[in-house]
Amino acid sequence: MSNYTHETVPTQFVEANGVRYAYRRFGKPGTIPLLFLEYFNSNMDGWDPDVTNRFAADHEVILFDNAGVGASGGKTPHMVAEMTKHCVAFCQALGLKQIHVVGFSLGGMIAQQLALEHPQLVGRLILLGTGPRGGEGMTFTELSAEEQADPVAFLLGAFFSPSEASQTAGREYMKRLESRKNDRDLPVSRDSAVAQLAAIREWGTIPATGRYATLKSITHPTLIVHGNKDIVVIPINAFILAEHLPNAQLIMYPDSSHGAFYQHRKAFLEHVRIFLNDGDSAVPDQNAIKFSVA
Amino acid sequence: MSNYTHETVPTQFVEANGVRYAYRRFGKPGTIPLLFLEYFNSNMDGWDPDVTNRFAADHEVILFDNAGVGASGGKTPHMVAEMTKHCVAFCQALGLKQIHVVGFSLGGMIAQQLALEHPQLVGRLILLGTGPRGGEGMTFTELSAEEQADPVAFLLGAFFSPSEASQTAGREYMKRLESRKNDRDLPVSRDSAVAQLAAIREWGTIPATGRYATLKSITHPTLIVHGNKDIVVIPINAFILAEHLPNAQLIMYPDSSHGAFYQHRKAFLEHVRIFLNDGDSAVPDQNAIKFSVA
Repeated sequence: MSNYTHETVPTQFVEANGVRYAYRRFGKPGTIPLLFLEYFNSNMDGWDPDVTNRFAADHEVILFDNAGVGASGGKTPHMVAEMTKHCVAFCQALGLKQIHVVGFSLGGMIAQQLALEHPQLVGRLILLGTGPRGGEGMTFTELSAEEQADPVAFLLGAFFSPSEASQTAGREYMKRLESRKNDRDLPVSRDSAVAQLAAIREWGTIPATGRYATLKSITHPTLIVHGNKDIVVIPINAFILAEHLPNAQLIMYPDSSHGAFYQHRKAFLEHVRIFLNDGDSAVPDQNAIKFSVA
Repeated sequence: MSNYTHETVPTQFVEANGVRYAYRRFGKPGTIPLLFLEYFNSNMDGWDPDVTNRFAADHEVILFDNAGVGASGGKTPHMVAEMTKHCVAFCQALGLKQIHVVGFSLGGMIAQQLALEHPQLVGRLILLGTGPRGGEGMTFTELSAEEQADPVAFLLGAFFSPSEASQTAGREYMKRLESRKNDRDLPVSRDSAVAQLAAIREWGTIPATGRYATLKSITHPTLIVHGNKDIVVIPINAFILAEHLPNAQLIMYPDSSHGAFYQHRKAFLEHVRIFLNDGDSAVPDQNAIKFSVA
């Protein structure tokens, strides 16, 4: 398994509760796997090979299509909480005891819900371009299921800032996305995108009471990464997460939008490495303590 | 010079315009020096030896008492802009062509002013626990010149969060501050503290128009480091800096107050190393370009 790369790892399938989940698993065996949760309207091919391959040098990497997405069977739910249940079923089907979760945008919402409801399953959280439940400007009134009819224009406009440096980084990112030639994932169906959008909007709705109240219960060591000019999930949401999560470090990159961590991937990869190896997290890692006592 | 440490480097003096400035200079010769600018009511002994010594492995380090502070002569001005002039005079007296500036709190205000008025002198900025001119809650109505009558209580209360982990880090920090036994700096006089406080409050006053307007002119690669529970300079100020400075990366640490970078110094030292070696800053370093063309 460890000789595979983002480009060569075969798509596999595992079944749970009648749903057949598509995934790709590669990287360093015997480590706590990094489970990658995708953004709106994307599939396993949407991850930057330069990021996944570098992570794979030190960690097992699992890319995964949630129910109804890409090559996975089943139906995409209309709620983040339901997507989270599929995620748990998938982990159980693979026999995973603990994972670190890398969630981008919608994936970061599922990651938070997963940590909240299944704290023992999650080691560390990496939240990319995402926001809290009921965050600021998170009902995405301008987003539509047809958003990616022109994927190049969509990605250059939403993931990268208008600066020449950012746009250049965007074009390089899109070139890298093509490096996997065979066994590409299936596109996200319109039905799946519509359901995802409903789920995102439900997540983004400001609750009548207790806004941000659940965040204090997510005690996992967390790394929040955001672009200071993110036009999809506005940057204040990353700040709110950092203020309310008890053990979260925030890193915000300059001149960058929703794809900040791709644009600044050299620094990002080093920042993640430091975070995953961190010895001086302020709040003790509850899971780690439990393991050492057990 | 390179064999000196924070503990052993002798205090030196240099004179400019009739003012005798105290400084300590050590670390790796032939590099762009890191100039350390102090916080309110502190002197050269207020820097964590564990931080300065690690920086000194790769960079020249210059600690410096501004006019009227500690062992320096002259009179502490009532304006950040005037403190900045002393800083420039000091650099000129030492013949420094370019410096990276590490400014903590008040020092970070001077660092911003320095970058704004003398862009060629500054390479990179590291802004610790500071905020923009006219930031949020920055008139420090609760601060007084007598604040440090009980320095232990002041530092544990203002620099560290109430958590046990943070308080423990605080006590370790204060122990490290005592590692320099000889040739200690002189205390900050009450007159100097009163003047500093006036300068901080003037800086923090919200202007009638153009709030944050000057920040776009500070194009230097900048690293902003802040605690997510900073009770001295509230964290939103770091976020505002990251939003308005064209080329600033923000790192915010969990469960930490004004001394966040001391509490999380292991991660902090790595983050600074990455920042100073960074090859993928979004906006090209204007100074670097000018130097390579010249």
